[in-house]
Amino acid sequence: MIASPLKMLFTEPLKLASGAVLSEYSLAFETYGNLNPQKTNAVLICHALNASHHVAGVYEDQAKSEGWWDNMVGPGKPVDTDHFFVIGVNNLGSCFGSTGPLSTNPATGKPYGADFPMVTVEDWVDSHVRLLDQLGIRQLAAVMGGSLGGMQAMCLSYRYPDRVRHAIVIAAAPNLSAQNIAFNEVARQAIMTDPDFYGGHFETKNTVPKNGLMVARMIGHITYISDDQMETKFGRGLSEKSEKSEDSSKPQTESVAGLKFSFEPEFQIESYLRYQGEKFSRYYDANTYLRVTKALDYFDPAAEHGGDLAKAFAPATAQFLVISFTTDWRFSPARSREIVKALLDDKKDVTYAEIDAPHGHDAFLLDNALYHRTVRAYFEHAVIASEATA
Amino acid sequence: MIASPLKMLFTEPLKLASGAVLSEYSLAFETYGNLNPQKTNAVLICHALNASHHVAGVYEDQAKSEGWWDNMVGPGKPVDTDHFFVIGVNNLGSCFGSTGPLSTNPATGKPYGADFPMVTVEDWVDSHVRLLDQLGIRQLAAVMGGSLGGMQAMCLSYRYPDRVRHAIVIAAAPNLSAQNIAFNEVARQAIMTDPDFYGGHFETKNTVPKNGLMVARMIGHITYISDDQMETKFGRGLSEKSEKSEDSSKPQTESVAGLKFSFEPEFQIESYLRYQGEKFSRYYDANTYLRVTKALDYFDPAAEHGGDLAKAFAPATAQFLVISFTTDWRFSPARSREIVKALLDDKKDVTYAEIDAPHGHDAFLLDNALYHRTVRAYFEHAVIASEATA
Repeated sequence: MIASPLKMLFTEPLKLASGAVLSEYSLAFETYGNLNPQKTNAVLICHALNASHHVAGVYEDQAKSEGWWDNMVGPGKPVDTDHFFVIGVNNLGSCFGSTGPLSTNPATGKPYGADFPMVTVEDWVDSHVRLLDQLGIRQLAAVMGGSLGGMQAMCLSYRYPDRVRHAIVIAAAPNLSAQNIAFNEVARQAIMTDPDFYGGHFETKNTVPKNGLMVARMIGHITYISDDQMETKFGRGLSEKSEKSEDSSKPQTESVAGLKFSFEPEFQIESYLRYQGEKFSRYYDANTYLRVTKALDYFDPAAEHGGDLAKAFAPATAQFLVISFTTDWRFSPARSREIVKALLDDKKDVTYAEIDAPHGHDAFLLDNALYHRTVRAYFEHAVIASEATA
Repeated sequence: MIASPLKMLFTEPLKLASGAVLSEYSLAFETYGNLNPQKTNAVLICHALNASHHVAGVYEDQAKSEGWWDNMVGPGKPVDTDHFFVIGVNNLGSCFGSTGPLSTNPATGKPYGADFPMVTVEDWVDSHVRLLDQLGIRQLAAVMGGSLGGMQAMCLSYRYPDRVRHAIVIAAAPNLSAQNIAFNEVARQAIMTDPDFYGGHFETKNTVPKNGLMVARMIGHITYISDDQMETKFGRGLSEKSEKSEDSSKPQTESVAGLKFSFEPEFQIESYLRYQGEKFSRYYDANTYLRVTKALDYFDPAAEHGGDLAKAFAPATAQFLVISFTTDWRFSPARSREIVKALLDDKKDVTYAEIDAPHGHDAFLLDNALYHRTVRAYFEHAVIASEATA
């Protein structure tokens, strides 16, 4: 399946949760499959921290350009684009296409950089609904997302009840725990204390806070993988280079089991994390990272209702599919069960699947037969069935 | 109880596991209580990352100078200095008194800094035994430590079997998991990529990598506290400053529930972590931090025995008390049970207590009635009893 990125310009100002106003903005998006004449088969996919509107398919003449959820969305896949019209949209504040810190600020003619406003899950959902308006889609068959994307799916369900019939909320949480916020804050501190950050105005200095971004990504990465999975994949294995002791600048010692006694990466997990961190620091924008983590920290639908999540969900009319993964310690099954409980308290129609998977939080992006069968069955039955009455 | 730090100079060179040799070095230590004429009542306390030889008591004319394990060690306390002669010793490579990166390198007349060699748990134990030699202590009644201190207690038990009758191993692990190493590596990267680190030679530039140390400590701190405890203590509470919106430089917005929409600390957990990180960065040496985390990464007694921990413990003749805490996710009870299983496989005398405590890894430093009663009972019965046959 060949994907083509599109862009839609919005000139009606968007008031954000912070009170700031975006006078105009663009949203990058992609679509897969065809909108049926009744316009009842649209599915919106919301993304998490490190993803974009490029959900599925590949770009023409670009090898290895599969979308981030290509195993889930496509012809014959669990979210079957032979039937559904799937929309991937890039969030405001991103560095992958929609208006964000790297975009030109129309007020100054220069990139926003640190002046790009704070954005929230609510802001994203508001802007996504405007995109639906432009596409002539009155009601989505489903909104779907994992992690931060799941938060957007939840938010759309109660903020725009009549715009969606099904909400699929995967590996998400009703808000961040103190520990979740703590990890985000350490990552932000790593970025903000990098001398190349310049208070977020690094663009003007022709630099980027690469080291801060690398450390931030390494921290994040630890929380995406389960302890067990890390043990299975890396354990205490030494990286090849360590085992061979190739570093000839160091004196060869009668060392224990090939240890290098230096601060070069020597365990496999070290090499892996540094590689992931460095790769990330080459393409991700620091100002985007800061804003996306704050959006995560802020999301808390129950807060306006005295902590009562059921009250937050009360306006929703959609049916829900909630999925969690047993070894996810970032957003554990217990957090998904809080969502399910609130929906049940509201007597909503909710299906819950707790998938036994070893991969931790990352499981929502990976191939897992039971997980994919669950999503496929839900779309084939519940979502398609709802089109008849739409 | 008034404590007085002492220092012992060793001029016999110490060969380290890395192959490097310390031609001379000092160990800072303190003692509490009196060594009995038979010299059978000595207890060695080993410390973890952020501690020293100052285990118990206070320094004369110095308010709030309690030792780091003052709730455990002292007159009438679980490790009762009215009976036992307790020794606290500072590890080589530390920044608190024993020879380390801040000390003068006799070869150059300048501080070691980055040239201080890598040290291991084995090196520490070797140097501690030399201190015992100087103090005329042939055999310890007990060696005791929590976390990294527990690793030293284990190591002494099999490396110098005839030098100790009891090993008390608290909140420890037989080696670091991939996830443990990952957290250490991220902390090291935060320090080493701080431009003020200068490859470890920051002394010569009259600076210290404060930001890196701060981030490193913040990461570490998250792993010391249980998720639940963090939730109970901080949850999603906003810091006072946030709630009052005192930051008058920012425009007041019709914000949700007092959110500031800035990157200043706003949740309590953020303020807490930054405070802890900044405090740490003012007194801890970066080169010490790097070495202590590597000593943790390297400790793996089973490695030389094809992964068989029982074989590593085989030479030990001590009796063991192993203690873990239910909510410790840094070194979980499962890791302590690995130690216990290996000891049982060896038919050693081992007592195991899994203490129900909400505080996570930090529990080993905190007051907990059951924990303290367990240690007290063990010393009052098993340890004292062993003196008769010593």
